[in-house]
Amino acid sequence: MQTGLSKKFGIEYPIFGFTPSEHVAAAISRAGGLGVLGCVRFNDPEELDAVLTWMDENTDGKPYGVDIVMPAKVPTEGTAVDLDKLIPAEHRAFVDRTLDELGVPLLSDDVGEASGVLGWLHSVARSHVDVALAHRPALIANALGSPPKDVIDLAHEKGVPVAALAGAVEHAKRHVENGVDIVIAQGYEAGGHTGEIASMVLWPEIVDALGDSAAVLAAGGVGSGRQVAAALALGASGVWMGSYWLTTSEYKLGAAAHGPSSIQRALLGASSSDTVRSRIYSGKPARLLKTKWTEAWSKPDAPEPLPMPLQNILVSEAHQRMSAADDPEAVAMPVGQVVGRMNEIRPVAEIMAELVRGYDEAVERLNEAR
Amino acid sequence: MQTGLSKKFGIEYPIFGFTPSEHVAAAISRAGGLGVLGCVRFNDPEELDAVLTWMDENTDGKPYGVDIVMPAKVPTEGTAVDLDKLIPAEHRAFVDRTLDELGVPLLSDDVGEASGVLGWLHSVARSHVDVALAHRPALIANALGSPPKDVIDLAHEKGVPVAALAGAVEHAKRHVENGVDIVIAQGYEAGGHTGEIASMVLWPEIVDALGDSAAVLAAGGVGSGRQVAAALALGASGVWMGSYWLTTSEYKLGAAAHGPSSIQRALLGASSSDTVRSRIYSGKPARLLKTKWTEAWSKPDAPEPLPMPLQNILVSEAHQRMSAADDPEAVAMPVGQVVGRMNEIRPVAEIMAELVRGYDEAVERLNEAR
Repeated sequence: MQTGLSKKFGIEYPIFGFTPSEHVAAAISRAGGLGVLGCVRFNDPEELDAVLTWMDENTDGKPYGVDIVMPAKVPTEGTAVDLDKLIPAEHRAFVDRTLDELGVPLLSDDVGEASGVLGWLHSVARSHVDVALAHRPALIANALGSPPKDVIDLAHEKGVPVAALAGAVEHAKRHVENGVDIVIAQGYEAGGHTGEIASMVLWPEIVDALGDSAAVLAAGGVGSGRQVAAALALGASGVWMGSYWLTTSEYKLGAAAHGPSSIQRALLGASSSDTVRSRIYSGKPARLLKTKWTEAWSKPDAPEPLPMPLQNILVSEAHQRMSAADDPEAVAMPVGQVVGRMNEIRPVAEIMAELVRGYDEAVERLNEAR
Repeated sequence: MQTGLSKKFGIEYPIFGFTPSEHVAAAISRAGGLGVLGCVRFNDPEELDAVLTWMDENTDGKPYGVDIVMPAKVPTEGTAVDLDKLIPAEHRAFVDRTLDELGVPLLSDDVGEASGVLGWLHSVARSHVDVALAHRPALIANALGSPPKDVIDLAHEKGVPVAALAGAVEHAKRHVENGVDIVIAQGYEAGGHTGEIASMVLWPEIVDALGDSAAVLAAGGVGSGRQVAAALALGASGVWMGSYWLTTSEYKLGAAAHGPSSIQRALLGASSSDTVRSRIYSGKPARLLKTKWTEAWSKPDAPEPLPMPLQNILVSEAHQRMSAADDPEAVAMPVGQVVGRMNEIRPVAEIMAELVRGYDEAVERLNEAR
């Protein structure tokens, strides 16, 4: 399973794995894909620096990437405290009332005051870029489309290609005009931020629109070798998988001392019908696991979600409280429709082997059908 | 391009083409696929009988199918006049006002009073089955899932396999338990009635759930040979295409004397973003071309759509008026996101040749990537 793009990156398979866990990212790279570390959770640049040093040391010299969250236009932004003031009391009251109704306990004193995920702020995301470029990332990806021009130029100066998510052809074209090297075509079924156009239509449409001007990674719905084969059949140069790594053995974020975390237990039990696309996570439409939390926000008495970055600031303490509460029915977790296929906790290497085997079988089947 | 299913039907390619036009259906069968005639538009059984006689004579002895619209449970239903009384005055007023605002003229006297599309009624759909079985259909498909048990039994007595649409695994399993032979896995991106799960996730999920108990046709998003390859890679036994035939040269329904109809002109100009999933066509969620008509129904002052079959009775005269008005900006037309790829009026045979060529190229690309 090789494409021009996998050869360019010097990786064994054109499988790009996005994950907020350095343990998962490193395992993906060691298994022959390209692990891409999500940086949005790092409020402190020094913590990211330490984690990337760990990545440097634990990837057997294989390449890895980083993923930031940065709009193309630098927004006017205040401090976290200023932004806090922009959140209506009605919204805070709704969040408090909902957590109460769901029986989610307050955070214990030793957790300290929740500061929100500052990685959504431009200044913090910008620091992620600088920290990352001091290491050896093989790719900088941006979850919000093109990063600002100066970030693209800086990455290129260091010889690092830039990837950007797109949910529609016109966005993909704009990214490439801005200097982006790789477009991640993110279909409707994907976890996290998504548009309305489903992968089967979106992937070949973006491939055709970009031609030779940029490589396309297929995102949204991929969790098997058959789906990798479908992506390459549709003209993509590789796949971008995010959700599927959340139920790997290496994924320990938010984990209890023993066994799978509440979020993992929720994911293992979910079917492909158990997701919802909503603005309640970040302020922009994102696909989430359907839980009592998302259901509460879809009731008639729920307020409209706030714009980015306010919505995430509003709900970040709620996310921490639900994570600490260990109740699989009340969690906030971005995940794609492929969650229906995530039914077992398994090591990354086992999943990679299965993807390769499934790909071969699919190509075999197509050859027989000729 | 051959699968077990295409061999079983004795067709050249596992491409099943749904269309309300007998001219298109016959052309699909002649070109090596299986043309499936949509019967819902035939209020008069004798008209359907005459059209199927025409199909018998114009398909070079090749197989064709028919598609009906029939819920598994026979609903209590009155006459069209009784049903008419169940439509609230508020809804009628909204439709009249909207057509007024869109500048859609009244029907001219010679068109006569609109009777609604009675094919949505069980008794009419049941007559379609009886009429069809007096001809030589190779397949009876039902757009609303399993047909009633007696219809399945009757078809099987005559040696005719039955296909049913499904948008989720549990529906697919139920269809097979009811005796359905082929499940049409209809992804979110499809035109007409759809569920929430996109093709990339839905198709392999239904394939896995059904195993050897039924063949799966992949529907939703297919308009190129690459997409056919993706469908077979994902484990489907063939594809079911509906939208893509609407812009063929053979499609003449609602056509002006010369050149493409207003609906075709609207389709040619639409991108993959120009569809919307809404209950306004039939009462159940269906993907439609986004036009001034669908936009009017999404405004805050619009009433909630009525349940099936009332909603279709409510809007059927509006559909006729818009069709006669010849304004591409105000039409009511089910179509999938693949509409973005429908940019030219072409003969069915040319599309078939392109599908086969695109399939071969995709398989070639996958072999090179191994």
